[in-house]
Amino acid sequence: MVKLIALYGKPQNPEAFEKHHREVHTPLVMNMPGLRKLEVSKVTGAPLGETKYYMMVEMYFADQNSLNAAMASPQGRAAAKDLIGFAGNLVTMFHGEVHEEQTV
Amino acid sequence: MVKLIALYGKPQNPEAFEKHHREVHTPLVMNMPGLRKLEVSKVTGAPLGETKYYMMVEMYFADQNSLNAAMASPQGRAAAKDLIGFAGNLVTMFHGEVHEEQTV
Repeated sequence: MVKLIALYGKPQNPEAFEKHHREVHTPLVMNMPGLRKLEVSKVTGAPLGETKYYMMVEMYFADQNSLNAAMASPQGRAAAKDLIGFAGNLVTMFHGEVHEEQTV
Repeated sequence: MVKLIALYGKPQNPEAFEKHHREVHTPLVMNMPGLRKLEVSKVTGAPLGETKYYMMVEMYFADQNSLNAAMASPQGRAAAKDLIGFAGNLVTMFHGEVHEEQTV
């Protein structure tokens, strides 16, 4: 399993940001072919002092080829275009291979 | 569900870093009371160019009280002490509330 991670800094207008993310951006992301799971985390703080982050969104795919195909698809390009429009200056993106997952 | 997120920058010596993380740090983390799930992601790149990140580790707990109790426990303090020693200059930590999780 691999995931695409979008890490957002704090928006100037949190209400408008959340509304757009929830009502416009998430439906576009959910349309991406091959998406297995979407996890949205609202950042609530940091163990030691402050954090500059506001939200993290993780999009899970079966493998890197599926992730690449999703991003290259019309649905992926629509989501990317929307992202740049509403949060291009807030978001950092990277992707990773999920190496270990244990329930204890 | 809440999670504690440790986001690591690129270590100078990746082999030593990974060996310590796998053999020493992860067992300390796994000892933390109340840990529900551990997810370790090796960062493989970014959609647009470079990323400064190397690895992301997510520790899931039932709620914020459980997370706080785990961090305040002897096991949590041992893990934190080890973290500062081997990656204090590489790691950014924050925690978040997992708002949405959908399998499609």
